[in-house]
Amino acid sequence: MDGIAVVLAPGAFRTDGAKTAHGLVRGSERFDVVAVVDADAAGQDAGEILDGRRRGVAVFATLAEALAGAGRRPDTCIVGVATPGGLIPPSLRALLLEAARAGLTIVNGLHQLLADDPEIAQTASRSGARLVDVRRPRPVRELHFWTGAIASVRAPRVAVLGTDCAIGKRTTARLLVEACRTAGLRAEMIYTGQTGWMQGARHGLILDTVVNDFVSGELEHAVVECDRAESPDLIVIEGQSSLRNPSGPCGAELLVSCGTRAVILQHAPGRACFRGREAWPLPPLEEEVALIRLYGAEVMAVTLSGEGLTPAALVQAQRSLHERLGLPVLRPLEEGVERLVRLLRSSLLERKL
Amino acid sequence: MDGIAVVLAPGAFRTDGAKTAHGLVRGSERFDVVAVVDADAAGQDAGEILDGRRRGVAVFATLAEALAGAGRRPDTCIVGVATPGGLIPPSLRALLLEAARAGLTIVNGLHQLLADDPEIAQTASRSGARLVDVRRPRPVRELHFWTGAIASVRAPRVAVLGTDCAIGKRTTARLLVEACRTAGLRAEMIYTGQTGWMQGARHGLILDTVVNDFVSGELEHAVVECDRAESPDLIVIEGQSSLRNPSGPCGAELLVSCGTRAVILQHAPGRACFRGREAWPLPPLEEEVALIRLYGAEVMAVTLSGEGLTPAALVQAQRSLHERLGLPVLRPLEEGVERLVRLLRSSLLERKL
Repeated sequence: MDGIAVVLAPGAFRTDGAKTAHGLVRGSERFDVVAVVDADAAGQDAGEILDGRRRGVAVFATLAEALAGAGRRPDTCIVGVATPGGLIPPSLRALLLEAARAGLTIVNGLHQLLADDPEIAQTASRSGARLVDVRRPRPVRELHFWTGAIASVRAPRVAVLGTDCAIGKRTTARLLVEACRTAGLRAEMIYTGQTGWMQGARHGLILDTVVNDFVSGELEHAVVECDRAESPDLIVIEGQSSLRNPSGPCGAELLVSCGTRAVILQHAPGRACFRGREAWPLPPLEEEVALIRLYGAEVMAVTLSGEGLTPAALVQAQRSLHERLGLPVLRPLEEGVERLVRLLRSSLLERKL
Repeated sequence: MDGIAVVLAPGAFRTDGAKTAHGLVRGSERFDVVAVVDADAAGQDAGEILDGRRRGVAVFATLAEALAGAGRRPDTCIVGVATPGGLIPPSLRALLLEAARAGLTIVNGLHQLLADDPEIAQTASRSGARLVDVRRPRPVRELHFWTGAIASVRAPRVAVLGTDCAIGKRTTARLLVEACRTAGLRAEMIYTGQTGWMQGARHGLILDTVVNDFVSGELEHAVVECDRAESPDLIVIEGQSSLRNPSGPCGAELLVSCGTRAVILQHAPGRACFRGREAWPLPPLEEEVALIRLYGAEVMAVTLSGEGLTPAALVQAQRSLHERLGLPVLRPLEEGVERLVRLLRSSLLERKL
């Protein structure tokens, strides 16, 4: 493990703006997460807030309380929120200065870099705190172009795409990899965002910080390296955004540049428009399936987020989507993904992937 | 004009690796192009090599001969080739050192930056030569996120996409803008590559150097600024790569993030596979039309590159594609794009764009 961590989500843990914090509370092989800071949720167990499962991760109102009160004293502090424009708002900045004074390692996945903030940088330098800006763009000379080496990759690729951003793609991908491993399938995940890295995936890239010309090459490189290093039965690729999200479409690279033939499509039947974009309605799922087919892949199953729906309404949506699409439809958080593992296993046996 | 320019295309002017040089010889409002350097084509007129039309741009074997022999003495030297990996090969580097010693402004659109080469940088600093690295990635703090402001843009957008890279998208886009203007339509071009900038387009970005998370925002920003500054009747967006090119798919941003409803699709019927990728055949055009429709736009017309075909075979391909697709099919270099201008004008009048 890289450290014992407290996750900062001031005023946000109950919102989907804290999706990095949520992922870290669900599980990380990189950091040992012991506490969350959010005054609005203080006094409760973070796991219980998330999905009713206690995980022994307490929420504290302040960083000082978290440092004093957590079961083990954190040596690392992780920014657990996504913010508009990837900027550091004043309330978060105050916490980061406090963490820097306390000499903690600070892990930041926002676009605004800690090292570019003179006061935080100086404070860290005085206290010996280490600043880790996960999203710092890497220099072009370190990046790979696409070469076609993907054709030599032995393990089939499955991409977990979604119909929108912040809809549960990473969580479904992680659940799927875990369930595959439990069932004896050697599955590896290619992370494509900062939270995936924070959760400990060994192969991947932070897609949105890569200079555009190198996105396909960096993806290919990650898949090729994963295949060579782990010889997995299956490579699960975490999707980003969605194919038609106007604020930043993504997905074509994950399909054509990675030679991906199968897709798990994450969807929130309770969501009518792209996240935060009321003038942009989500297109019908049938179209998404057709679009993915034009990129050379088949949707194997649809996985649902229950966002905004009662449990009964979610079950109803599951049933009607199954009838409409003729595809398996799952509720991963409610019923697990073992059915998906069985589907994947038989596709692998029949060499359909 | 930014300068009197000699374009470097050593050993390459007759190949499609010199597409930047070709664009500059066809026309630029930013640079006054007076000479090309390529020993393999020396002694001829660059325009005549390109399409049989003399343009008074002589090709010289060496830079020294170009500086001495061009009608007006160049003060600027432009890298006119695309190279594997965007690197500067030794033969080109020798020319660049010579240009730096001669005190010329050097404009470089390759990924490898002149300023990162100590010998070139020192030589330039001694002689007073200015180094312009067009493809230097801009810092994140200068970049825009997508905001949805595109909804306020008045001028309809038409994207010139292609079925592959290096297939003639930029040339068709430029011809279209020129023909619109001749016909009294105020058309503006959004450039998306370094050659478009070198040719003098006022609005745009070098898409492949943008950090991925900002691609849609920078595109939107360019379109919004163009609409406000020029109040054009029509905005023509230059495409990059192709929607399904495995080495770097591109196009979804140009459609969904820019609210583009019409596409001109550039195609080379003589090309069977993606450029330089014999294991990756080009998908059928019908699929490309369907794919573009799923992104909310209609293909208005297909425009053809005659690459690898005799003039008669190109005419035959034009006829059979028109029958297959039921769409207007044009040969822009051979017959001009006036028919496209008429189509656009009637679509504008009928408010179909």
